[in-house]
Amino acid sequence: MLKYFDNSATTRIDENVLSEMMPYLVQNYANPSAIYSIGKKNKEAITLARMRIAECINANVNEIYFTSGGSESDNLAIKGISFANSKFGNHIITSSFEHPAVLNTCKFLEKFGFRVTYIKPKQNGIIDPKDVERAITKRTILISIMFVNNEIGTIQPIKEIGEIAKRYSIYFHTDSVQAIGNIKIDVKALGISSLSMSAHKFYGPKGIGVLYMKSNVNFIRIQDGGHQEQNMRAGTENVAGIIGTGKAMQIATQNLEDHQRYLTMLRNYCIRELKANFPNVIINGDLEKRIPRKCKCFI
Amino acid sequence: MLKYFDNSATTRIDENVLSEMMPYLVQNYANPSAIYSIGKKNKEAITLARMRIAECINANVNEIYFTSGGSESDNLAIKGISFANSKFGNHIITSSFEHPAVLNTCKFLEKFGFRVTYIKPKQNGIIDPKDVERAITKRTILISIMFVNNEIGTIQPIKEIGEIAKRYSIYFHTDSVQAIGNIKIDVKALGISSLSMSAHKFYGPKGIGVLYMKSNVNFIRIQDGGHQEQNMRAGTENVAGIIGTGKAMQIATQNLEDHQRYLTMLRNYCIRELKANFPNVIINGDLEKRIPRKCKCFI
Repeated sequence: MLKYFDNSATTRIDENVLSEMMPYLVQNYANPSAIYSIGKKNKEAITLARMRIAECINANVNEIYFTSGGSESDNLAIKGISFANSKFGNHIITSSFEHPAVLNTCKFLEKFGFRVTYIKPKQNGIIDPKDVERAITKRTILISIMFVNNEIGTIQPIKEIGEIAKRYSIYFHTDSVQAIGNIKIDVKALGISSLSMSAHKFYGPKGIGVLYMKSNVNFIRIQDGGHQEQNMRAGTENVAGIIGTGKAMQIATQNLEDHQRYLTMLRNYCIRELKANFPNVIINGDLEKRIPRKCKCFI
Repeated sequence: MLKYFDNSATTRIDENVLSEMMPYLVQNYANPSAIYSIGKKNKEAITLARMRIAECINANVNEIYFTSGGSESDNLAIKGISFANSKFGNHIITSSFEHPAVLNTCKFLEKFGFRVTYIKPKQNGIIDPKDVERAITKRTILISIMFVNNEIGTIQPIKEIGEIAKRYSIYFHTDSVQAIGNIKIDVKALGISSLSMSAHKFYGPKGIGVLYMKSNVNFIRIQDGGHQEQNMRAGTENVAGIIGTGKAMQIATQNLEDHQRYLTMLRNYCIRELKANFPNVIINGDLEKRIPRKCKCFI
């Protein structure tokens, strides 16, 4: 029997997510921008999904934007903030082991006159906040450090970096695609300006993501067109996907502690057996500051 | 009983589209970028959808890119071509009555040093190709004229504009969101460089679109990240949406003539009754060159 072992790549959709989505995939198909009742109802359903997500990360409802996935969220945050604030500076700080959605977005911006510092993680797979602080210049407008590394699962010192960003009045984006569903995130407590997530990483559908963008952040949209998503992300809404994301986020938050406990047990078993059977095995990255992590220390 | 009368805004998903999508929404959930068998199978399913779409518009399979919708397709084509070719010129020609996904993308480019000519349609809601030709300068790199206007349904002289674009060696993009499923489109015969479509306009799901981009067109990607879609559109593929789009396109092409005949009958009845009951009614736009159109004259 086939055993699936790659839930960090993508997950199987949760049955309860699917059952909330189905009516919007089939019969409730009106365009949410329409002014007639069945359109308005879909707009309301989107707002409910937005509220659910906002609640899970302690954001305000108007700070939640739906996108087509984690990659688009990273692009929107990093390009949107950089282009909007280029008159204040052209320097961005990120890490050298970000997901390509961040790294290649930074490379794109380099062609537009931005300068990017790529901070290397320490031997334990964790960025030293002091390295971030040392890289700051008068021209720095944005720090983008991922919450959890997508290859080795190490958890980055987001709170400390958030405090540094706040102290220097620099925007702080975090790609949280691998953190959502594994760690409790409170965007206010962590000093995060913007945060990306991808529904299919936490038992939601593919092709839908979320960007949290703090209400006071100056950014421009990068997908131009209609007035959807508070005029910051054009295109007819993927209603079924949005509804599914709201439900998946709610389930992930409700089940978080059980999920952490179960996965930590599996992970520890796996490491123990690997070490017992292959004495020379090396586990990359810090053994404590990594997901799954059975604690609530990140709120 | 509620009668839905807004199929140009969005359509109800076709049952056969839904039934092809469902396995990919539920059990075939592997990431198509994965190197194991269930990932590769999903990649193959995507290729099949790409082949279906290519066949319907007489494109090559490697000229079909999946996006999150019509708006993203327009953004990718217009920004992608403009940024890639800025060393050859900075002038774009479009019309004043394009969809916001084109108009606002052009406005965005104006902030980056591009100059845009917005051609006004004639009284009949149709762009005069001579006006397009007259607007061409040595700095013109792109013409973007919609196939069918989204407000009044008039069909634009795409073939003539395609010929002009070819004569002057200028790229020619057409937003075909309102044309696909209503008009037979042959991208080779029409001289189109790039063409946008949106699945939910032709009985497919929301949140998924297609960009046809001719293989010799020089363009850059605008959503940075992973290597998906031949490295031109990053982000984990919306597999179920892609499968649905392929099926919807196939059905739309197979049913095209019946669909045209039926809608033309309904449209003519509607106009006749409106005129009979409201003698002062004015129908905006050409009465012949509009969808629905019971002919195959656009291949």
